[in-house]
Amino acid sequence: MNDTIAAISTPIGTGAIAIVRLSGPDSFGIADKIFKGKKSIDTAPANQVINGFIISNDSIVDQVLVSKFKSPNSFTGENIVEINCHGGTFIVQEILNLIIAAGARHAEPGEFTKRAFINGKMDLVQAEAVADLINAQTNINLRLSVSQLEGKLSDTIHELKDNIKKQCSLLEIELDFSEEDIEFAKRDDLLNDLVKLETELEKLSSSFIHGRLLREGAHIAIVGQPNVGKSSILNMLLKQDRAIVSSIPGTTRDTLEESLDIKGFLFKVTDTAGIRDTDDLVENKGVNRSNQILKNADIILLIVDSSLPDINSTKTFLDTYIKTSIKPDQMLIVVFNKIDIVDKQSFAEYKEIFNDYTSLEISAKTGFGFSSLEDTLVSLVSNKPDIQFNNMLTKMRHYDSLNKSLMYLKNAIASLKENFSPEFVSFDLRASLDALGEITGEVTTDEILNDIFSSFCIGK
Amino acid sequence: MNDTIAAISTPIGTGAIAIVRLSGPDSFGIADKIFKGKKSIDTAPANQVINGFIISNDSIVDQVLVSKFKSPNSFTGENIVEINCHGGTFIVQEILNLIIAAGARHAEPGEFTKRAFINGKMDLVQAEAVADLINAQTNINLRLSVSQLEGKLSDTIHELKDNIKKQCSLLEIELDFSEEDIEFAKRDDLLNDLVKLETELEKLSSSFIHGRLLREGAHIAIVGQPNVGKSSILNMLLKQDRAIVSSIPGTTRDTLEESLDIKGFLFKVTDTAGIRDTDDLVENKGVNRSNQILKNADIILLIVDSSLPDINSTKTFLDTYIKTSIKPDQMLIVVFNKIDIVDKQSFAEYKEIFNDYTSLEISAKTGFGFSSLEDTLVSLVSNKPDIQFNNMLTKMRHYDSLNKSLMYLKNAIASLKENFSPEFVSFDLRASLDALGEITGEVTTDEILNDIFSSFCIGK
Repeated sequence: MNDTIAAISTPIGTGAIAIVRLSGPDSFGIADKIFKGKKSIDTAPANQVINGFIISNDSIVDQVLVSKFKSPNSFTGENIVEINCHGGTFIVQEILNLIIAAGARHAEPGEFTKRAFINGKMDLVQAEAVADLINAQTNINLRLSVSQLEGKLSDTIHELKDNIKKQCSLLEIELDFSEEDIEFAKRDDLLNDLVKLETELEKLSSSFIHGRLLREGAHIAIVGQPNVGKSSILNMLLKQDRAIVSSIPGTTRDTLEESLDIKGFLFKVTDTAGIRDTDDLVENKGVNRSNQILKNADIILLIVDSSLPDINSTKTFLDTYIKTSIKPDQMLIVVFNKIDIVDKQSFAEYKEIFNDYTSLEISAKTGFGFSSLEDTLVSLVSNKPDIQFNNMLTKMRHYDSLNKSLMYLKNAIASLKENFSPEFVSFDLRASLDALGEITGEVTTDEILNDIFSSFCIGK
Repeated sequence: MNDTIAAISTPIGTGAIAIVRLSGPDSFGIADKIFKGKKSIDTAPANQVINGFIISNDSIVDQVLVSKFKSPNSFTGENIVEINCHGGTFIVQEILNLIIAAGARHAEPGEFTKRAFINGKMDLVQAEAVADLINAQTNINLRLSVSQLEGKLSDTIHELKDNIKKQCSLLEIELDFSEEDIEFAKRDDLLNDLVKLETELEKLSSSFIHGRLLREGAHIAIVGQPNVGKSSILNMLLKQDRAIVSSIPGTTRDTLEESLDIKGFLFKVTDTAGIRDTDDLVENKGVNRSNQILKNADIILLIVDSSLPDINSTKTFLDTYIKTSIKPDQMLIVVFNKIDIVDKQSFAEYKEIFNDYTSLEISAKTGFGFSSLEDTLVSLVSNKPDIQFNNMLTKMRHYDSLNKSLMYLKNAIASLKENFSPEFVSFDLRASLDALGEITGEVTTDEILNDIFSSFCIGK
């Protein structure tokens, strides 16, 4: 990287302090053009904070603290200057403008982290974890991303790679000596080792179901017939009045997705429009959207009004709507609402319709049963007593590459079983290795990098 | 200050970096409880950046850079620790929570700056300038607040104080020797000097009219009969479509105040509802609000539709509405809109109604005349060729105290002219001094300080 980039690295808005950051070979020189302190940034020792002023046309623009980091001992591995200025939107922009006028270039989204990756300060899994860390919304989110930033997942991948590489090398030595017909790798041992690796890759691959839920949050769809209390239940979960609640059927026309932190776990809850035939155009659009949400949900909360046991209508709704759309990997929980005003006898009969499903009883009005609803939701995503963050895939990109690696490994095993020539086995093992290398970034393309870093915020 | 305070000092939101700041005697010890680096914060040299981790229950929460500042060489004059962490809303809050659990207290709004003031790191004018700097919206805003942060206005106030103190001292020496009937201060010289000071204080007081406009921005009210193009003109000034523009009279029901930066000067523009009799309740409320806005405006842009010269209706509007409400200190500019589709002959006649006023011709549709409208607005607030920031009052609090000081000075002058005993003159001069001391904060109360700092953001 020959040029020097700059960006505002703190959130946009008004605060006490903001940071304008520079990275690149000319960071010190460029910053010195607009800085006046006791010493120049260029001559100051690294990792020092220098007090001074930002100057433009001989007049003071701001009083600042400047931190200096010298290549290679910095986040990006390049020379870095961080200007801590007063945190107003106008003043920060003004200082960035001066830095740009002094010779720096506006950084692209994620360009600081991209440089850290390119300069070998972190691998691709770690770089992606930086974005996750910033976007973490719950404690589990945070722990997941910190674990990846520390390199725990990278270590797991590297270990798998080392093992595959070992087998591959043995085979390749054999190829070098092929005319001498020496077998360095015993076929049975090799097969054994590769099958073991296959199991490990399969285990890691299967961790994605859980890992994705932990990272992205399980999508909960709140569904049910009109006026059963869907919006009230959403509000109880959110502990605030976000959705408009009224007793007029069809109030919720648009769909709202809300993030929810239950005991450190992230959920994305969507309240849906009352599902029914209607000739209201706007509402009909809402019903279509509800179907879409139902399709994308990990967890479906089917809300039932236990105080109005209309057995026929409910059965029809369950049979024609829920049973036809639910998929095997979706979790359905029947939530009997309005349990505070229920008639016990008719409710017992009503309940039987739902005998096939997990159910619980709550009252959105009194709050009864809400903590057990929360516990149930948490149990659905934290099904393991001790979550193993370091052996868990959380990103589709990693999952895809791992499955590609697994596919080549399976090919290698098949070739070995078929007694194919070692070249074929070795070729597949190399391809399997490369696919793993995509995860940590040893094997990569500009396209992959751009895909990853363009989703970062500017200044990171 | 015996306790240690902490707050998030960067704007709230998502960014690459955020800062949690601690100030107080235990800053180093508290931060060390949750920090693990090569060296502890306590033993590290001052003004150093230390690389490390935030730790909670033996697990890593974040990778951070910590800066250490040692009392008295810090912003507050106390021991300060700044933790630069990843800039996600959840993680920053988490780190602040850990700091609080480790023994710090949540900082009140402006408490860091208040401590800087109490510890003598800056005077009250400078402390207030910090808030202004953060809230600066234009270049002139910025220069005004930086000038005050540098202490230019404080210097002016101190000079005035020194001069009054000198006269006061002479008089008081005389009082000490009163039995000996010695006159240390010649009455004529003293009177002369005080009158000179009176002129200086009056000049500074009168700078507030201009200073307030520069700091707060001149309030522009856009008024006119319905459908003359008020909203279109606001949009042109804002260079974006903020207000909803339509050709149905009465579209603008609510009032919108927008900040506007013209050549570095701040304006607050408010579009008003079309002013007319209406039985639409909501709209009537709008009309009332329009009257309020007209009252509070510094500059009134009276928009006239030059393409529809309804002389009678316009005259009635001007006479009954504008002429009755405009005050002498308000500036009125008549803006002839739709000049692109005007009939020249009838327009010439129409124009005569407004002969008493400054006017200009524009077209909101083609953009014609807009740059001269902007120039006119700037000329109204920058009426001096060289703005003297250091001799300018910009805050009501300063203005009130200066006028109190001036009042006592005038009393002293009057007593002197009446040949009252020196005690009276001296008493008034001391009161005049104290009033000036309120500005810089040598004389202050808890109430004043709370008033000032509670309007700051948290973390400053």
